Amino acid sequence: MEEKILGLLEGREFPKAAQMLKDMNPADVAQVLEGLPGQNMPLAFRLCPKELAAEAFAYMPPEAQEVLVRGFSDKELEEVMGQLFLDDAVDMLEEMPANVVKRVLRHVDAETRKGINQVLNYPKDSAGSLMTMEYVDLKRSMTVAQAFDRIRRTGVEKETVYTCYVTDSRRKLEGIVTVKDLLLAPMDAVLREIMETNIKYVTTHTDQEEAARALGKYDFLALPVVDFEGRLVGIVTVDDAMDVIEEEATEDMEKMAAMAPSDKPYMKTGVVDTWKKRVPWLLFLMVSATFTSLIIHSFEDALAASVVLTGFIPMLMDTGGNSGSQSSITIIRGLSLGEIRYADVPKILWKESSVALLCGCTLAAANFVKLMVVDQVSLLVAGVVCLTLVLVVLVANIVGSTLPILADRLGLDPTVMASPFITTIVDAVSLVIYFNIAKALLGI
Amino acid sequence: MEEKILGLLEGREFPKAAQMLKDMNPADVAQVLEGLPGQNMPLAFRLCPKELAAEAFAYMPPEAQEVLVRGFSDKELEEVMGQLFLDDAVDMLEEMPANVVKRVLRHVDAETRKGINQVLNYPKDSAGSLMTMEYVDLKRSMTVAQAFDRIRRTGVEKETVYTCYVTDSRRKLEGIVTVKDLLLAPMDAVLREIMETNIKYVTTHTDQEEAARALGKYDFLALPVVDFEGRLVGIVTVDDAMDVIEEEATEDMEKMAAMAPSDKPYMKTGVVDTWKKRVPWLLFLMVSATFTSLIIHSFEDALAASVVLTGFIPMLMDTGGNSGSQSSITIIRGLSLGEIRYADVPKILWKESSVALLCGCTLAAANFVKLMVVDQVSLLVAGVVCLTLVLVVLVANIVGSTLPILADRLGLDPTVMASPFITTIVDAVSLVIYFNIAKALLGI
Repeated sequence: MEEKILGLLEGREFPKAAQMLKDMNPADVAQVLEGLPGQNMPLAFRLCPKELAAEAFAYMPPEAQEVLVRGFSDKELEEVMGQLFLDDAVDMLEEMPANVVKRVLRHVDAETRKGINQVLNYPKDSAGSLMTMEYVDLKRSMTVAQAFDRIRRTGVEKETVYTCYVTDSRRKLEGIVTVKDLLLAPMDAVLREIMETNIKYVTTHTDQEEAARALGKYDFLALPVVDFEGRLVGIVTVDDAMDVIEEEATEDMEKMAAMAPSDKPYMKTGVVDTWKKRVPWLLFLMVSATFTSLIIHSFEDALAASVVLTGFIPMLMDTGGNSGSQSSITIIRGLSLGEIRYADVPKILWKESSVALLCGCTLAAANFVKLMVVDQVSLLVAGVVCLTLVLVVLVANIVGSTLPILADRLGLDPTVMASPFITTIVDAVSLVIYFNIAKALLGI
Repeated sequence: MEEKILGLLEGREFPKAAQMLKDMNPADVAQVLEGLPGQNMPLAFRLCPKELAAEAFAYMPPEAQEVLVRGFSDKELEEVMGQLFLDDAVDMLEEMPANVVKRVLRHVDAETRKGINQVLNYPKDSAGSLMTMEYVDLKRSMTVAQAFDRIRRTGVEKETVYTCYVTDSRRKLEGIVTVKDLLLAPMDAVLREIMETNIKYVTTHTDQEEAARALGKYDFLALPVVDFEGRLVGIVTVDDAMDVIEEEATEDMEKMAAMAPSDKPYMKTGVVDTWKKRVPWLLFLMVSATFTSLIIHSFEDALAASVVLTGFIPMLMDTGGNSGSQSSITIIRGLSLGEIRYADVPKILWKESSVALLCGCTLAAANFVKLMVVDQVSLLVAGVVCLTLVLVVLVANIVGSTLPILADRLGLDPTVMASPFITTIVDAVSLVIYFNIAKALLGI
């Protein structure tokens, strides 16, 4: 699609390109435009009908938006900003340099400017920074017919009309009524009688992930956001909640792999930025791994006496690391989905220990056969390796399952207690167990 | 909340318990009921008003649903099944033993039974198995007023009324019209004129993750599902799409930690099931790790000649494993979000190599200082370790970034090419590099 449009643009067949773009979905237009090189992007953007162009703009990544905004005339800027929903405008401005933000704010109407400034002031990753202020508000004394009138009059510029909010004169949230409720009620019913008063809401400072999960839990299309005085200030919509869920999962995976989370997609992140996200953790883990070296150094005599033992170090360390990762990632995900609570610790410890003993014995049995048949080591050495294996898996599962919960309990992010960190700890413990068992059983 | 309800039930204060439950959201009722021990769950369930009970039932996990279904009288079963949306009924039946399924199917009306059987026949994890068949269908010749009439008449039992589907006499999908479009159009407008004909859809056999992401990409509330002849058979709704996105992220994380993905939440999975999910990968990786042992064995002479080298093996292996995880998880997530394509391989290789050299040199510099000041090894040994470090990180990033893409290209699941697998490969390669550099520079 990109190639086709690019071909038409370069062949200066603008009407044909315009025709193709016109029939596309805004999200697809955004994707095609984003891939066009140099001046072709602004060119294609101007070929789109105004409304489609503004919609596509909302779907574009901040870098592409910045290129476009810098090229806009004042009139174009006013048009596009006039069409954007408030939350999309804020998303865009959050990523732009100050001079661009100033220029944009000069070209929006006073009310929008006030809204943008308010939302920009909420903490990053809070429900306040995610919400839109464009919702339909109704009064409890309205009839269904009046409610429909108001939706028809004000609905065009609202992001969602399907959930409407009933507020009092001081903007306190009194009830919620959906368009489905309105459609199924008689036209002369009064909202007071049909509105839902058992309201789920979040505050402006609730974490955006919590807000997104609440929306998912209750299967809502939008969730109201209130300020500290209980006044309705905005709503979080399901499409934004879905994006948050995706972003948070990506962030969790990045942290699990010992990287600082990144805002941008991989292909748009520069080499130096990627380096900055990755190297601090690598350094930290490398320093931690020196403990392992210290342990090996302190057992150098034992190793020199029985060099065959060295060969099993990687297998023992890897197995411990892998078992620990399995436990820690299971627990971290459970915590993040709200399936695991602090009160579950005894049950978790029991389960992880049982699983560890089962896994450890299976691995030890397989390994024992291999040690005797393939490696043909002495029965004692095989015993040392297999016994260590069982203990290492046990320690790995206990460490891997308790550290994330402990971190969570202390108000830290449990995600950093994932594979790399657990592996480093388990490595050191494994070696101490290994060498001590070897010393005891082999008498070295 | 659970404790409070449980206290009321055990004190036989049923009216108070009923009053508390009545005012709660169905999702919360489900959560409370799920946590009640023994016969208290069915008891509390029966205290809820019928509609609330049925709604809460849909939110409950399959195990709790099974307990309830087994205790239901035929009349109760008919009532609850009559209230359930088709897709929730299917979700429930997918997890139940055959005798329970049979009993349930005996107690639903013929049309529902037909729908359930049809959906149960689609492949697991397909859009067909995720969809609901309860949508509002309209005809192109209807006026807006007629459309509203039809929505009012049939809407109560539809999962969503906000997106309506215009079909021809052979059920071919002709257009889409939202309630917002209908509200903003004049009452005598004909659907033909206002419906959107550029339709995004999936087929019954599309992967559910793809369907969920399409819904997210276009910010839809529902996405139509058509069969191979282009006939509309159902819709996927945004609440189910959100659940899919969460489940798929959990599955990816589990696979990244070398576990078979699990359907059930951690706290509900038994010890033996957990063991079965974890031990095959541990065994496989343990066997792979024996290559590492073979490599160490084959360099035993070199190690005996310079025992100090052994101490740095864990640090080198860990750093390689960590760097490889960083690359592989970044790439796997990028693939799963559709941000990375096969054509990007050259760019990715260039970026990963550059990042690797930057990271490797940073780590080597830090390590060199530590080796000279703390460990006080010879300049040559420090050189061997630092040079190895740079090469190991380089290899780790290249292996970590290319293997997932290769797996994806071959139609395999890239997720298994995550940390544990990469670590095993990188470990072996690291040791070969280390010993060869040591042999060359130290002349052992």
